[in-house]
Amino acid sequence: MLLEKTVQTIGPLDREAMKNARRRVDSLIKPPGSLGRLEELAVQLAGIQGRTIPEYGSRAVILMAGDHGVVSEGVSAAPREITYQMLSAFTGGVAGISVLSRMAGADLVVVDVGVAVPVDIPGVLNHKVREGTGNITAGPAMSREEAVKALEAGIRVAADQIESGRRLLATGDMGIGNTTPSSAILAVLAGIPPEEATGRGTMVNDRVLERKVWAVKEAIRVNRPDPGDGIDVVSKVGGLEIAGLAGVILGAASRRIPVVIDGFISTAAAMVACAIKKEAREFIIPSHLSGERGHAYMLEHLGLKPLLHLDMRLGEGTGAVLAMGIVEAACRIMKEMASFEQAGLSDLDEEKLQK
Amino acid sequence: MLLEKTVQTIGPLDREAMKNARRRVDSLIKPPGSLGRLEELAVQLAGIQGRTIPEYGSRAVILMAGDHGVVSEGVSAAPREITYQMLSAFTGGVAGISVLSRMAGADLVVVDVGVAVPVDIPGVLNHKVREGTGNITAGPAMSREEAVKALEAGIRVAADQIESGRRLLATGDMGIGNTTPSSAILAVLAGIPPEEATGRGTMVNDRVLERKVWAVKEAIRVNRPDPGDGIDVVSKVGGLEIAGLAGVILGAASRRIPVVIDGFISTAAAMVACAIKKEAREFIIPSHLSGERGHAYMLEHLGLKPLLHLDMRLGEGTGAVLAMGIVEAACRIMKEMASFEQAGLSDLDEEKLQK
Repeated sequence: MLLEKTVQTIGPLDREAMKNARRRVDSLIKPPGSLGRLEELAVQLAGIQGRTIPEYGSRAVILMAGDHGVVSEGVSAAPREITYQMLSAFTGGVAGISVLSRMAGADLVVVDVGVAVPVDIPGVLNHKVREGTGNITAGPAMSREEAVKALEAGIRVAADQIESGRRLLATGDMGIGNTTPSSAILAVLAGIPPEEATGRGTMVNDRVLERKVWAVKEAIRVNRPDPGDGIDVVSKVGGLEIAGLAGVILGAASRRIPVVIDGFISTAAAMVACAIKKEAREFIIPSHLSGERGHAYMLEHLGLKPLLHLDMRLGEGTGAVLAMGIVEAACRIMKEMASFEQAGLSDLDEEKLQK
Repeated sequence: MLLEKTVQTIGPLDREAMKNARRRVDSLIKPPGSLGRLEELAVQLAGIQGRTIPEYGSRAVILMAGDHGVVSEGVSAAPREITYQMLSAFTGGVAGISVLSRMAGADLVVVDVGVAVPVDIPGVLNHKVREGTGNITAGPAMSREEAVKALEAGIRVAADQIESGRRLLATGDMGIGNTTPSSAILAVLAGIPPEEATGRGTMVNDRVLERKVWAVKEAIRVNRPDPGDGIDVVSKVGGLEIAGLAGVILGAASRRIPVVIDGFISTAAAMVACAIKKEAREFIIPSHLSGERGHAYMLEHLGLKPLLHLDMRLGEGTGAVLAMGIVEAACRIMKEMASFEQAGLSDLDEEKLQK
C-alpha cells in the first residue's frame, strides 16, 4: 500500500520552473553554458523543487546495511562479520562515511534492514526485514513480500528525514558480498552478460572473480527474474539494503527531494527504483564513477553522467557525500551570482557576438 | 634573481613521509585502495608537507588578470573591455569565482598583472607589468624581462599568501582572448598541431575558430619560441596572467605548499612552470577537466588526471576551488578515520584474504 501510493505520487519535473531557471542561469555574468554541469544541475534542481532558484539546505546520507546468503559460495574476500562490525564504526564517527559526511555537513543515518545478526547499537535504526538474504545461487534472495517491506522501510526512513527538514538526501550501503547481487541486477535489468557486469569488488582475486561470475549466472538461471518487474528482480537476485535504498530513492522522488546516489550498490538500487517507476530517474543526481567495472554500464543504462572521477570503491555513501558540495554550488550560483544587468556589464549577447 | 632563487629551492617530495602516509592509509578501516584518488592525494600531500598526516588549513585562490593584444585579430567573441569590467564583479562578490570560493572557504585574491587599462579598484592588487600583451601574430607577447617580472609577481603574491598563513593555494585567470596564447603554449610545449591544440573558448563560431588556429600558427611562425625554455615560450606566445600564474605555482612549490590548478589557462601556466622547473609538477593538484578541447592534452602532457568532470569552461579558478573540498577530504580521512587496530575490527589482511 505505502509502496503503491509512493510510486503513484512520483510526477514529472516542473517544466515551467526549469524554463525560468534556464533563463536565470543564462543571465548570469559568465559566457552561456560555461558552468557546464553546474548549470544543468541548477535547472534539474529547479524542476524538482518547483522554484526558479533552487534551495540547498539540511542534508542527510541514509546508509542501509544488510547481509547476503551468497557469501557462503565464496564470492567475497572479506568475512561476513564485517557488516555488523562496521555499524559501530559508522555511529562512532570513525568510518570513511562518518568522516566525509561530517565534512559535507550531512547527518549520517544508519539503518539495519537485513544484517545477519541481532543489532543493538545506539544510533542504528532498526528496520530489519530478515537476517540476511537467502543464497541466490540456490533460490530467491527474499520473498516478494519481504522485498516490498524493505522498499517500504526505505520510503519510511526517507519520509522521516524529509519531515524533519532534510532538503537533500544521499544513499550509502554496507553489506559484505553485495557486489554480486548488484552485478546480477545490472545483468538482468540492462541485459548485459554476467562476465561484463561482474567485477572484483573488494580485493577479489581471479579465482574468486570466476566464482562471482558463476554465482551471477546461477542466480539468474535458478530464479529467472523478470526484467520488466523491478520488485521481482530485487527480491530474486538482489539484497535487503539494495531494496531499502531503492525505497529511499522512490520516497525522495515522491516528495520532490533530490537524492544523490553513491557507487555500484546505490546505482543498482537506482536501477531497481527506475524499473519500478521510471520517472524516479529525474530526481536522481549521480556522484562518482566507481572503480568497480560494471558501474559505467549502470550509469549509461540510466542516462546519468558522473561528476567525480576518484576511482573510489568503498561504498557507504562516501562518493555521494563528496558530490553534495557540487549540488550546493549549483544552488549558490543561482542565488549569489549577479546578472549582466545587475552588474551593469556589457552584455555577452550571443547573436551580437557571433556576427 | 627572485625567480632563480625560487626555482633552485624547489625540491623533491619527502619520500619518507609518503611511505609513512601510505602505511597509515592502508591501516584505515576500509579495503586497501578503496578510497582511490583520495588516498593518492593524501600521500602526495604528505610528501609535499613532510608529515604523515597532512594538514588542511587556510586557503586562497589567486586570480591573475591580463589583456591580450591578439584580440585585435578577431580571435575572441567577447570584447576586451570585459577583462576590466569583471574585476569589480570579483571583488564585489557576485562573479562565479566569488560565489564558489566563498563556499570553499577560500579567500579570493585578485591581481592585475596586465590589464590593458589603468585599474583603481579597491581590493585588486596592483602588480601590473604592462598594459596588455603585444599582438603575438606580429611579434612577442612581451619581452623576456617582462615575462620574468610577471613570473616574479606571481611568486611574490604566493609568498605573501603563504606568509599570512595559507596552506593551500589555487589558481584562476581572467583575460579576454587568453585561450589563444594558451593553445599556442600547448602546441609548442607538447608538440601538438595548432588545429588540435585550439578550441572554441567562449562562444566562438567556425569562422572565429579558423581565425584562432591561424593566429596560433602565425604566432609560432613569427616568434619561433624555444620549447626547451619555458620563459621564452611564455614571453613570446603567452600572456601576462599566464606567466603570473606560473609564478604562483613555482612560488607555492618552493615553499612546499600544494597548489590546485583550474582549467585551460591555469594548466597552460602549469606547463610553463614545469618547463621552467619540472619538479614543480609534484606540488600541483589537478581539479576539473575543462570543456575546452585542448585541456585533456595538457593534463596528459603533465601526467595529471582530473578529479571533476563538470564540462566547465569559465576559468576564474571556479573548477579549482570546487576541488578544494576533495583535498580537504583527503586530509580528513588520514586524521579522522580509525585504523583496524584502533577500531578493534577483524583485519582485512590482504594475504589472508587472497588465499
